[in-house]
Amino acid sequence: MAKVIASISTSLDGYITGPDDRPGSGLGRGGERLHHWVMGGPWTYEGGHEFALHGPDKEFFDDLVATVGSGVVGRGMYEAAGAWGGTNPFPGTLFVVTHRSADQPPAESGFRFVGDLGSALDQAAEAAGEGDVSLGGGADVIRQALAEGRVDELAISTAPVILGAGKRLFEGFGQDVDLEVLKVHSSPYATHVRYRVLKPGR
Amino acid sequence: MAKVIASISTSLDGYITGPDDRPGSGLGRGGERLHHWVMGGPWTYEGGHEFALHGPDKEFFDDLVATVGSGVVGRGMYEAAGAWGGTNPFPGTLFVVTHRSADQPPAESGFRFVGDLGSALDQAAEAAGEGDVSLGGGADVIRQALAEGRVDELAISTAPVILGAGKRLFEGFGQDVDLEVLKVHSSPYATHVRYRVLKPGR
Repeated sequence: MAKVIASISTSLDGYITGPDDRPGSGLGRGGERLHHWVMGGPWTYEGGHEFALHGPDKEFFDDLVATVGSGVVGRGMYEAAGAWGGTNPFPGTLFVVTHRSADQPPAESGFRFVGDLGSALDQAAEAAGEGDVSLGGGADVIRQALAEGRVDELAISTAPVILGAGKRLFEGFGQDVDLEVLKVHSSPYATHVRYRVLKPGR
Repeated sequence: MAKVIASISTSLDGYITGPDDRPGSGLGRGGERLHHWVMGGPWTYEGGHEFALHGPDKEFFDDLVATVGSGVVGRGMYEAAGAWGGTNPFPGTLFVVTHRSADQPPAESGFRFVGDLGSALDQAAEAAGEGDVSLGGGADVIRQALAEGRVDELAISTAPVILGAGKRLFEGFGQDVDLEVLKVHSSPYATHVRYRVLKPGR
């Protein structure tokens, strides 16, 4: 059975974007610093989005994607990322949760629109084969999947910045959940912690 | 000049206590897990508060207190901790920020009441001599000191638990602050990250 691994970058104060995230500036104002670890340091929305992973950041990422067979994201993240230029950069098919699922993107894009999160996770698990499912955000789909007991692992990359505003990963999440630390990777750009989600009674 | 090092334990969702923190259960309902790293594993309020630090948790703590000459906490934390049984367990004098500063505890307790945070930090810096000042919380005094540019380092111990409720460290804090990762210690009970606070124009 495919594991669902939710992974996301946050600030120390728990924001996954700065204020005003939108297409063309997906991480919001000041939010670029959340992805210094992805880009190998400072970068701009204008300068392109080539991943440049090094050292512990690369180890964390390679380790994370090594088992991934498919992915799920929310429509908001898909839009904010500008659909990654039109082609899914992640392994397998990326299932996009959206109420507007009638208008499918071309199959060769690697994206697939699905009407609800549960179905997206089911289809992604099937598509992943022996692999795992990566759940990439935004905050709302991660919270919902976590609340519904559908998340097996959390991979949280905490960047060394306090944003003070933006979208907060755990905003409104009111459950008590025990975790188990699986692995920690640390770089000047982020502290990456992989947690197993301990589910009561399983 | 003494550095001010703010140190506190939080959940992954940013709470420094569970709900209903009060004298006798200082970390609130379910909040004991925030201090598994201090106690060497599960503990209860009834069973006493002997520190039992091991491995990376002990290395982090020893490293942290090695340079500390005095401390500052808010009255709320002092009360919630039951005044640590009446004697300051930390190095030097512990200055307690309280509006009720007229009624001083006995000098041999190691506690000293001060009427406002700025004065408490000033007096602690003087008392620390060549040492640093530890700022221990609660959340309100850490936020206030951070907002006033009085915090030089943040030492955040993140326990592997989502609490879903309680007092949130960065509640209402609206500033953007750059940090620098100084050191990471990782154990099954907590991921400890020490950050330097990068102050604009200094």
